Amino acid sequence: MNIAILFGGSSYEHEISIVSAITMKKVLKKSTLTYIFVDANREFYLIDTDKMNSKLFSSGEYKKGKSLILKKGGFFAEGMFGSKKVDFDVALNLIHGRDGEDGKIASLMEFFAIPFISPRLEASALSYNKLYTKFLAENLGVKTVAYEHLSRDDERKISMAYPVIIKPVRLGSSIGVSIVKNADELDYALDVAFEFDSDVIVEPFIEGVKEYNQAGCLTDAWELSIVEEPQKEAFLDFEKKYMDFSRDAQVLSADISDELKERIQTAFKKIYDPLFRGSVIRCDFFVVEDEVLLNEINPIPGSMANYLFPDFEGMLTRLSKALPKEKKIQVDYAYIHSIQSAKGKA
Amino acid sequence: MNIAILFGGSSYEHEISIVSAITMKKVLKKSTLTYIFVDANREFYLIDTDKMNSKLFSSGEYKKGKSLILKKGGFFAEGMFGSKKVDFDVALNLIHGRDGEDGKIASLMEFFAIPFISPRLEASALSYNKLYTKFLAENLGVKTVAYEHLSRDDERKISMAYPVIIKPVRLGSSIGVSIVKNADELDYALDVAFEFDSDVIVEPFIEGVKEYNQAGCLTDAWELSIVEEPQKEAFLDFEKKYMDFSRDAQVLSADISDELKERIQTAFKKIYDPLFRGSVIRCDFFVVEDEVLLNEINPIPGSMANYLFPDFEGMLTRLSKALPKEKKIQVDYAYIHSIQSAKGKA
Repeated sequence: MNIAILFGGSSYEHEISIVSAITMKKVLKKSTLTYIFVDANREFYLIDTDKMNSKLFSSGEYKKGKSLILKKGGFFAEGMFGSKKVDFDVALNLIHGRDGEDGKIASLMEFFAIPFISPRLEASALSYNKLYTKFLAENLGVKTVAYEHLSRDDERKISMAYPVIIKPVRLGSSIGVSIVKNADELDYALDVAFEFDSDVIVEPFIEGVKEYNQAGCLTDAWELSIVEEPQKEAFLDFEKKYMDFSRDAQVLSADISDELKERIQTAFKKIYDPLFRGSVIRCDFFVVEDEVLLNEINPIPGSMANYLFPDFEGMLTRLSKALPKEKKIQVDYAYIHSIQSAKGKA
Repeated sequence: MNIAILFGGSSYEHEISIVSAITMKKVLKKSTLTYIFVDANREFYLIDTDKMNSKLFSSGEYKKGKSLILKKGGFFAEGMFGSKKVDFDVALNLIHGRDGEDGKIASLMEFFAIPFISPRLEASALSYNKLYTKFLAENLGVKTVAYEHLSRDDERKISMAYPVIIKPVRLGSSIGVSIVKNADELDYALDVAFEFDSDVIVEPFIEGVKEYNQAGCLTDAWELSIVEEPQKEAFLDFEKKYMDFSRDAQVLSADISDELKERIQTAFKKIYDPLFRGSVIRCDFFVVEDEVLLNEINPIPGSMANYLFPDFEGMLTRLSKALPKEKKIQVDYAYIHSIQSAKGKA
């Protein structure tokens, strides 16, 4: 299979996406990889797989490569004698954060009829926003961590007990996130968060909470990863958090009961199906007082959480054959014909 | 001002969008209009303003016009000697239903840095889906009509009293909508609705409910339309409903108290700001037992509800100067440089 990896984007996680994309070379060994870079200015470039290393991008040298344009059916390189289509079977959206996770890349792929692995537009818009994720989960009967929502112009008053964690609703990483130990620290933490977003959610900060990650997708059957208990420190900074993005070695399953695993997987399936069909996502759960709570949805996890799956490459191949189909809409101009008839113009 | 009107799209309301677009010629008399047609196959065409009539599209003759491609900064006509940018100040998204209202056009405009009047991606995704509209309104403290949500695989059981109205969650028109008078009719109505969508909402059908429409936008100040009491029959079919799309004559304000008007406008502002900035939307409210309930959000109302505004054209000009700005993200490759240093490669 020839997989086009879309990476980069106008995102705080642009560099992380480059790391994820490079990691794919080690993970997808049987496939042909076609690398398409979306630079910070949102121009498309075809990158030689051999040249895929971080310096190509940080040096700006990628600009010497072939620039591409997006048209119906694919990406095209313009040349002297017309434009030439870049050949691939399926695009893999590996743009973390804005553009990739907010629904823009999904919109582009769907509009231009390019088969793609990624959450679709609606799934992206809902999971990119932590507040909307709460709405979604509640509606599906999946419990989430308690929260309060504050908008930039709201009174800065919260009713839950400290310590709390403040999160801008729309950023896919830890940027703008603070732990607030007492009321004195609240104002500053909100100033920081509102620098990045018009809205924040406030959640109780639970020291040492049990966290479990479940990734997976639906191909012709459910393909669920092992459940991982991520190693973590009290609070991960940007750099530490994203060492994750270069991971390619298998990890061990969390040491949990079958019953808990079952509950985590049931919650995952509720979130995933049908909204996230066509994508590989990771859901991060907390277990608090024996309740499974959704912490967040990672619609495009670092290096696609490949290290949680026994056969990641095979799964992508199967997924590419089970992508959701857009409903065909036939335009027959019956309505306009009937107006024309009524006006005596037909 | 030179306004590019985007219309058509791969949508059940493709033809309606053509009617809306033609109506704009009568409404926007002082502006230069640049018509960009998105055909049912999602190819872009530049249409001469003089040739704008419905037959051009129903006959397929539009295909003889200039085809356009979308690139960074605008639409381009490809020619013998390179590509030429189509000149305009702002794009007006007039694609009703799929593509226009679901967030795809907003994604395209934002991605390619084209200034545009339309709900943005997130606002589109939420208002295009009637279930998500409920979540949004409830969170903002705007009451909505009571509802139940059914997915395709759910047990077909509802708990509210008949008659009810069944609506597919994602269609922007009356397609797939049924009034169900008793339990015997439920199954068939759900069959119809699930033909169009994986999810439906069920609401009480309130005969003769008082309905009021409020349109508006935020430029440098609030610009709210008159409140209209739409004339309606028990149930509008597709054709009748969309005679609306060719309206260009002013209508009269509803005969309601200042106090009720105030409550409707307060609810409108809560919904609009900040999510819908950059767009002109219409909210349809019911008044039931003296309560103002949001019925639905029309993110791209027919002919933009021009007939509700005293100075529609001036308002669009002001709105085009008050469009939300996307946050600039600076990519400095600091993270990649630090990895390179750590590896001794820098």
